Amino acid sequence: MKLFRSLMAAFLVAIFPARADERDTLYQVSTLPALGAGLYEGFRPYEDILGKGDFGIGTFNGLEGEMVLLDGVVYQVLVDGTVMRPGPTSLSPFATVKFFKPEQTGDIADAMDYKETAALLDGILVTKNVPIAIRIEGVFEYVKARSVPAQEQPYPTLSAALEHQRIFEMTNVTGTAVGFRFPTALAGVQADGYHLHFITQDRQAGGHLLDFRLRDVRYEVDYAYDMLLEFPQSAEFRELR
Amino acid sequence: MKLFRSLMAAFLVAIFPARADERDTLYQVSTLPALGAGLYEGFRPYEDILGKGDFGIGTFNGLEGEMVLLDGVVYQVLVDGTVMRPGPTSLSPFATVKFFKPEQTGDIADAMDYKETAALLDGILVTKNVPIAIRIEGVFEYVKARSVPAQEQPYPTLSAALEHQRIFEMTNVTGTAVGFRFPTALAGVQADGYHLHFITQDRQAGGHLLDFRLRDVRYEVDYAYDMLLEFPQSAEFRELR
Repeated sequence: MKLFRSLMAAFLVAIFPARADERDTLYQVSTLPALGAGLYEGFRPYEDILGKGDFGIGTFNGLEGEMVLLDGVVYQVLVDGTVMRPGPTSLSPFATVKFFKPEQTGDIADAMDYKETAALLDGILVTKNVPIAIRIEGVFEYVKARSVPAQEQPYPTLSAALEHQRIFEMTNVTGTAVGFRFPTALAGVQADGYHLHFITQDRQAGGHLLDFRLRDVRYEVDYAYDMLLEFPQSAEFRELR
Repeated sequence: MKLFRSLMAAFLVAIFPARADERDTLYQVSTLPALGAGLYEGFRPYEDILGKGDFGIGTFNGLEGEMVLLDGVVYQVLVDGTVMRPGPTSLSPFATVKFFKPEQTGDIADAMDYKETAALLDGILVTKNVPIAIRIEGVFEYVKARSVPAQEQPYPTLSAALEHQRIFEMTNVTGTAVGFRFPTALAGVQADGYHLHFITQDRQAGGHLLDFRLRDVRYEVDYAYDMLLEFPQSAEFRELR
């Protein structure tokens, strides 16, 4: 029955493609304040998350590393700097993903850091009032990224966990910055502004971007006019103040 | 082709019921701050909205009255106090709906006003961190509700439009309060706390609830752990500051 259902579903997707807006929805697992409070228990399998996007960022059960989802592949940047490819049943406590469909693209030839790049993007965006997926690909003169060690229960807050972060510095590396810009209206559930992760072209290094200096890149921007927000159902989340 | 597709869709819904979580998602059209800024241009037809819920509140194109969605029927409480049933192609600039599935119920026999009722509900809720649909049905000793006149472009802000609201007072009336409680985390896109509309049992009167004194009612509470938020795609929304 399950196989029949899967086959029928595949057949139906082929003859009745999903409505454009359903395939263009940003999907968010949990909220950033919940993660900040130490809710690292994974509850949403990556196989579900991959049904909602091929591009995004997040983390893993127990805050075990930084997640980069790029071109439909999930990468897990561990605290020792190695990059794994977690299985489909791996659980996420926090993730933001989307099917990436660039709506605006441009090149940046001048060297600029994170702050200058954010200002450049802010200047070309047609709106700052919706979540926006951002992909920046090319040569980075300098990358400062971090990852975090897996945490044990009782979980510390995110700021306490980040005291044990490991920072990776790379120079003259080709790779992709993957992430989002969120509007201030969503500051209660997401980062206010830019939140980018990084993965090298050879998929051997990456992390949460703290700073960078890009040199010769192409940016792509994808606006999300629909957002599906999934709150955790755990007692910890229900009781969070 | 369209008929065939509709028939197939109905058949498929029958044999492949939607996943529980898809049918248990709160759906929101636009944001309260956008409505507050005067974005009253309807863009989402009620026939679409009814596909996402059978219970909820909102308004109509041009802010023409208060919307109550109850048991799958859309009611439009106009400024003159009459209640209409708008057609499926009527457009909404702002609405919040859900398929209502009560998870907690209780009776209130003591007379209490809006504030006291909110405090009672706050005391029984298992969480205040997700949107919650609230249905209160029974006898109300007193109801103070309002509606607003349709606005013309250029649209004034909501607070300016509300200077022309009409207030309806009713005593000893049987009816239903329909609405939601939103968490503070969503204050950038929704009301912070309770937002209730009212409709009488005979569906002849109602409005946005300003105050009430209930006497003998049953409350039902439905938690929404998933929320689909649809931002407007208009230039006015994109440019909103």
